Amino acid sequence: MITDATREDAAHIHTINANTAIFSQEETDTVDEMLEEAFRDGFEKSGYHFIVYKDEGRVLGYACYGPHSLADRVDDLYWIAVDPNARGGGIGKKLLAGAEEKMRSEGVRLIIVETSGLPAYESTRAFYRATHYKEEAVIKDFYSDGDDLYIYTKHL
Amino acid sequence: MITDATREDAAHIHTINANTAIFSQEETDTVDEMLEEAFRDGFEKSGYHFIVYKDEGRVLGYACYGPHSLADRVDDLYWIAVDPNARGGGIGKKLLAGAEEKMRSEGVRLIIVETSGLPAYESTRAFYRATHYKEEAVIKDFYSDGDDLYIYTKHL
Repeated sequence: MITDATREDAAHIHTINANTAIFSQEETDTVDEMLEEAFRDGFEKSGYHFIVYKDEGRVLGYACYGPHSLADRVDDLYWIAVDPNARGGGIGKKLLAGAEEKMRSEGVRLIIVETSGLPAYESTRAFYRATHYKEEAVIKDFYSDGDDLYIYTKHL
Repeated sequence: MITDATREDAAHIHTINANTAIFSQEETDTVDEMLEEAFRDGFEKSGYHFIVYKDEGRVLGYACYGPHSLADRVDDLYWIAVDPNARGGGIGKKLLAGAEEKMRSEGVRLIIVETSGLPAYESTRAFYRATHYKEEAVIKDFYSDGDDLYIYTKHL
């Protein structure tokens, strides 16, 4: 079941990130800061909307998206992550579809996803290709030397 | 002369934006918010570094840049604007060179510039091409329908 995240889900989201081998400490810290803002100021004011996938009350994955500043009805999809023990069950795709449905209902025209070109992110890039995102641009050596930025887009 | 902006320069920066025909109200408001953060929290903590070009004490242009989150030694060049009455004197190029020099001295590897594909921004795009920025990507209909995003990069 996909629902808006609650303050109680924040610790579970943190645990998923910590267990996700490819998230750096800096990335995990960044999500924690976004969670703090989201539950202090609300999803709308913070610009960070968190949803979770729950099975029998357990948080097995989450997604976070929100408006891109100075652009008309454009949202960034900041994060999607699934509990490593719950992979392979299509939870990522359900979270993506749930996030897209919410964005569509809010009038969003265009979704932007940024991810890394490192081999560890090949399955992430395959995920977006399989869900009909367009590989719109690659910026060489963006995240660091040898780590390119891939930009994916989907028009709703 | 190019120097770090001071709190007293903020009103002059606001006036330059207001007189710059191509800035929208939303963009002007955004720069005002960034100025407020920069002078409340400091350039480093806010992540917004403002520099100004002054001639006999008058602010004739400014630039704003700062670190891109989660990327290694990458800065966004957020804004450069010159007083419409002082155009044609190379102040934009001096501001850009000044900002690049500061970024280089801070160890920045890569500068990212985002601008619009609208005809009103043709001179802006020509400015970056002339100053050896690479047109790295175009995202169609990004800012709004018919208004593309152009991403320029320069490796330092």
